[in-house]
Amino acid sequence: MLDQTITNIQPLDETAIQAAQARQNILTKPTGALGMLEDLSIQLAGIQRQAIPSLSKPMIVVMAGDHGVTRSGVSAYPAEVTPQMVMNMLFGGAAINVLANQIGAKTVIVDMGVASEIPAHPDLVTKKIAAGTGDITTERAMSVEQAKAAIQAGIDVINAQDAGSFDILITGEMGIGNTTPAAAICAAITGRSPADIVGRGTGVDDEGLSRKQAAVTKALNLHQPNAEEAIDILSKVGGFEIGGLVGAILATAAQGKPILVDGFISTSAAMLATLLNENVRRYLIGGHRSQELGHKIMLDWLQINPLVDLNLRLGEGSGAALAYPIVSAACKILSDMATFEDAGVSNKE
Amino acid sequence: MLDQTITNIQPLDETAIQAAQARQNILTKPTGALGMLEDLSIQLAGIQRQAIPSLSKPMIVVMAGDHGVTRSGVSAYPAEVTPQMVMNMLFGGAAINVLANQIGAKTVIVDMGVASEIPAHPDLVTKKIAAGTGDITTERAMSVEQAKAAIQAGIDVINAQDAGSFDILITGEMGIGNTTPAAAICAAITGRSPADIVGRGTGVDDEGLSRKQAAVTKALNLHQPNAEEAIDILSKVGGFEIGGLVGAILATAAQGKPILVDGFISTSAAMLATLLNENVRRYLIGGHRSQELGHKIMLDWLQINPLVDLNLRLGEGSGAALAYPIVSAACKILSDMATFEDAGVSNKE
Repeated sequence: MLDQTITNIQPLDETAIQAAQARQNILTKPTGALGMLEDLSIQLAGIQRQAIPSLSKPMIVVMAGDHGVTRSGVSAYPAEVTPQMVMNMLFGGAAINVLANQIGAKTVIVDMGVASEIPAHPDLVTKKIAAGTGDITTERAMSVEQAKAAIQAGIDVINAQDAGSFDILITGEMGIGNTTPAAAICAAITGRSPADIVGRGTGVDDEGLSRKQAAVTKALNLHQPNAEEAIDILSKVGGFEIGGLVGAILATAAQGKPILVDGFISTSAAMLATLLNENVRRYLIGGHRSQELGHKIMLDWLQINPLVDLNLRLGEGSGAALAYPIVSAACKILSDMATFEDAGVSNKE
Repeated sequence: MLDQTITNIQPLDETAIQAAQARQNILTKPTGALGMLEDLSIQLAGIQRQAIPSLSKPMIVVMAGDHGVTRSGVSAYPAEVTPQMVMNMLFGGAAINVLANQIGAKTVIVDMGVASEIPAHPDLVTKKIAAGTGDITTERAMSVEQAKAAIQAGIDVINAQDAGSFDILITGEMGIGNTTPAAAICAAITGRSPADIVGRGTGVDDEGLSRKQAAVTKALNLHQPNAEEAIDILSKVGGFEIGGLVGAILATAAQGKPILVDGFISTSAAMLATLLNENVRRYLIGGHRSQELGHKIMLDWLQINPLVDLNLRLGEGSGAALAYPIVSAACKILSDMATFEDAGVSNKE
């Protein structure tokens, strides 16, 4: 199923791309005057394989998991906050709930590997691979089997939805400590130094930052992950919620739908998904540029230019949810604007 | 009326600002993790003079006017496009109509000084000061009386709306050639060289760019506008739609409501409004960073940091309309998120 999903991800449709480009050029505005909106509408045409794409059903999937590396003092918050924030999301009090309401997004909360039991709730999807990962500074985050199971669980979460119930995936996550594995994944893939990638996450002080850098360095030295092998990297230095996101991204791309990528952790999952199939890259839309140090390195590796830069460092899917109206607007511009001919407007002299 | 409106613009309410800041600090997220959204919510609290601001009724005002300087070959499009695009807006085919629909904004189109007659339409507000400005390279754009009348007309457009019908103004404009007066206004106020400010507008080639720079230089040398006198600058090198926007901004600020500023032309109007009353500055929210060369200089002078940067160079209010959902989200975050105490979430260790 995992292999089949990966195989099913097609290149974008060039005919639709050309048709969308041609239409952009006859709309009543100077060519190129809508900048990134024009590029986005053309990319979406290629993803949806139709000249005039449309979007109206965003779905936010928030994957949650805990991290053994928190025992190395890498986070400003205690690990107990992971289940507390999952409960907060289930009861509608988190930032992502507010932003989901604003854009009318369906929201799915998934326990991929929270360390404690989360009380049953009708909106909670339980795919717990294990009760938190291993401490990557001394052991693998998870076994290879668990890594594959996490990705498969993410695929299953997407494929369990009615296909007509969403037309764009917004990635989100919750997991105290998860900027550390995300930084390790980025370092493993790009070969860049942890000092260039590890940031302050939810707000560690200088000593905490040093501990994070040391933890990433130690994990990479211990495990020597293969820069081109997503499963190897995920199992050695990843996280269950990151694996879930990899699967969700793969399954969404396989369905021919775009993925609006959130910040540092979500982008690390997008990198792993792209390692599994290079075609994934063009299904990705960068939601926002995170304040987290290494996010720019991730975005550059993926060759994506994010839509907003609001100094956010929250995760949950918040930056991507904030960017969604821009993506939606890009489609509406292409479908609803008048052409020069229709409107009787003179074109450039 | 003009003087009274200017006098009525109050400093922001510091009590509301402090209350909003205090509430941001107890919401279930790391302090500061929502970056510019937090700052924005606090600014809006100060503008609305209440601890938890709310926004739900955006109004887009598009001011249109023609420019005698187009006879100097400063635009890639013929001047006849101004009335054509006004008609396109009245019939719903322009980019701003599509974006207005998306955000549920009331839209008001105002003829401030289009050179030709625009056929009557129920949604057209006619405040025509004159049929286009003078060519600023050889004469004043307008008389001092016309400049005051243009600002007053903008005030009247705002005050004619039911006060409860809008809670934020989005500025927009249409006027072939109007990046030239906007650049001249910026140069007059900041003293920066036209070479640093004049850009390609809707897309002039290198020769057109040279003509624009020469036109701005010639106008400034001829008229020697006073850098601190908004009416002097507007009358010598401005435009009727720019004057209308100055008035709309002043009247909105006087009503204690925020102004979401669009690109290059709108921002030049915001600068003039700020010259008239320094309090205006804090009522302004930067919608977007335009691709037009001098926009950064304008934003720096106003000390505002725009919300999005999407390589836009269209005007009409398009960039600000695209940014509106972010402003709305900033309010909703402050009002709707749970606190650490409410949600039973542990705070930073």
